[in-house]
Amino acid sequence: LKIAVDVMSGDFPPEILIEGAVQAVNAFNVQLIVVGKADLIEKKLKTMKFDSRLIEIENAEEVILMTDDPVTGFKTKKDSSIIKCAQLVKQEKAAGFFSPGNTGATLITSLFINGRLKGISRPAISTFIPTVNGTPQVLLDAGANLECNVNNLLQFAVMGSSLIKKYFGIANPKVGLINIGEESTKGSDILQKTYKALEKLGMDFIGNIESSQTLDGKANVLITDGFTGNILIKSIEGTFKSLIKIATKEIKKSIFYQTGALMMKSALQNINRILSADEYGAAPLLGVNAVCMIGHGHSRQKDIKSGIRVTMQYVEKKVNSAIVETIKEYRLNKIRVPYQFWHMSDFREVPLEY
Amino acid sequence: LKIAVDVMSGDFPPEILIEGAVQAVNAFNVQLIVVGKADLIEKKLKTMKFDSRLIEIENAEEVILMTDDPVTGFKTKKDSSIIKCAQLVKQEKAAGFFSPGNTGATLITSLFINGRLKGISRPAISTFIPTVNGTPQVLLDAGANLECNVNNLLQFAVMGSSLIKKYFGIANPKVGLINIGEESTKGSDILQKTYKALEKLGMDFIGNIESSQTLDGKANVLITDGFTGNILIKSIEGTFKSLIKIATKEIKKSIFYQTGALMMKSALQNINRILSADEYGAAPLLGVNAVCMIGHGHSRQKDIKSGIRVTMQYVEKKVNSAIVETIKEYRLNKIRVPYQFWHMSDFREVPLEY
Repeated sequence: LKIAVDVMSGDFPPEILIEGAVQAVNAFNVQLIVVGKADLIEKKLKTMKFDSRLIEIENAEEVILMTDDPVTGFKTKKDSSIIKCAQLVKQEKAAGFFSPGNTGATLITSLFINGRLKGISRPAISTFIPTVNGTPQVLLDAGANLECNVNNLLQFAVMGSSLIKKYFGIANPKVGLINIGEESTKGSDILQKTYKALEKLGMDFIGNIESSQTLDGKANVLITDGFTGNILIKSIEGTFKSLIKIATKEIKKSIFYQTGALMMKSALQNINRILSADEYGAAPLLGVNAVCMIGHGHSRQKDIKSGIRVTMQYVEKKVNSAIVETIKEYRLNKIRVPYQFWHMSDFREVPLEY
Repeated sequence: LKIAVDVMSGDFPPEILIEGAVQAVNAFNVQLIVVGKADLIEKKLKTMKFDSRLIEIENAEEVILMTDDPVTGFKTKKDSSIIKCAQLVKQEKAAGFFSPGNTGATLITSLFINGRLKGISRPAISTFIPTVNGTPQVLLDAGANLECNVNNLLQFAVMGSSLIKKYFGIANPKVGLINIGEESTKGSDILQKTYKALEKLGMDFIGNIESSQTLDGKANVLITDGFTGNILIKSIEGTFKSLIKIATKEIKKSIFYQTGALMMKSALQNINRILSADEYGAAPLLGVNAVCMIGHGHSRQKDIKSGIRVTMQYVEKKVNSAIVETIKEYRLNKIRVPYQFWHMSDFREVPLEY
């Protein structure tokens, strides 16, 4: 089992990401293919201790930047670390890959190089969401598809359930549909039709979930289109951050508050840990024919380490085969719609066999 | 200046709402028409002290419940407190009304009884959003319109700006468009077109605002469709509540934490006050030809009191005339599309002159 890891595309310098990769090797005894500028990687690796049999280097001269347009990046930077990672999986040299880089570029790269899983119309980014009661919960789509039809949303339900089943060992994951009210008549025509279809599908569908209940842990799988999903997760993230800003400002006003905060320090750290989705280090792109993990741009050592761990687990727990089987079981492989991306009308110019 | 207040439709018993109304009378010297079951109101008022010249009672035998379908409620409960309130404004017996009842029913009632402001295609619910830096900020639409076209969104920008201008005295309110990225090419076709139109309109348009920045106070007016707006504000609300739940649970684990929390009590209360949008007590339904304020269902005395205060201020500051003028100024009164509601295809059966 080898995992390819892109150490070039994050916000932090490659050296920091390489440190995370080495930490993963030492902790999990995993075999890695470290992808990026070979001389830079070699130089850094020389300063570190690890079992040298466990790390290979794959040279990639280019880097798709965070600011690059995903389509342009994919089309012009053929020797980039993200593309190399996807190719290593395609060539079966690696069992999965992890990149903390440009999300859109990773998406397009994996979609075009690795292709889609059998029966899947649209891949989706699935993000772990913390819950008050500790229930494992994943939301998809977190931003790959601006608009979704009923079949897309049903496939997301299957992908999310397969993930929860395999990854957390929960036999019947609870599926909820993000909507603006609990009643089946709420929301757009597509949401209403999806509600009815989910009722009939045979999953443990618990109905609509309002965005105010996202962290309650009522469901294991939250289904929504990529626009709404993106608005929702970023709003949760932003609210936490704002709260911390406000609290920090307030606490500074008195030594009394500061002492109080100090006394609560480990409680506050615990709260932060509960609310931090970073524990997983990566969001899987589900629906592509590869284990493709997308990390936060601001990933540091520990995030790279946990991202690699999660990638290993996805490979070992065979999440992708479970998706293919379940799609067949629920007969959701009948409809295939052409893949459309955000404003990527120039997509047709990209040769499908890259 | 008389304000009509619906004391029947909230989650709490009418007596609680009447207490809030009397508090408003005593605090602001405002003239009220208290709308609801006359005998019940009279009985409660007898137990309270206030200048009796300042309160009139308008009898309404029926109540549209929170659980009532808005359209059905509006069509069948003609003697309900919400409908009576809107009629009092229509008949110019009251200058504005406040109801903490069924939002959808209030919306439909005001729309059909009071009509739309000149030039407005679709009314929108505008909600005050707290900000880290204290900047006044309003989001619209918070849930009246499931889908919006470019013109609707531009009109929301005008309505929100007029509100901020008149209510907070800010000469050039900053307008932001809720989207999934900062670039003008992000989001749906409608959002991209709205972006371009806002750039040309002549307002202080500051570009796209990601949902993670909602509380930063970058803008005074946040523009979005009612579905996205509803997802966004409920997610902020839910995140706060979940955080409090988690923190309470953590703090209980040790007497040390509890002491710390006690020391920070007034800081925590201050944080809560900053984050509480309840300060305003009501969300204006902008775009109808009336000052129509919608309160939270769970409004208690103080919320009714502040809701009435906000209603008074809207009347006094002539927010509606400002909207009509600004719509004309920006030439946004050219296009009028037929009004469509959430799943309310049976709307056509409702006579426009109720």
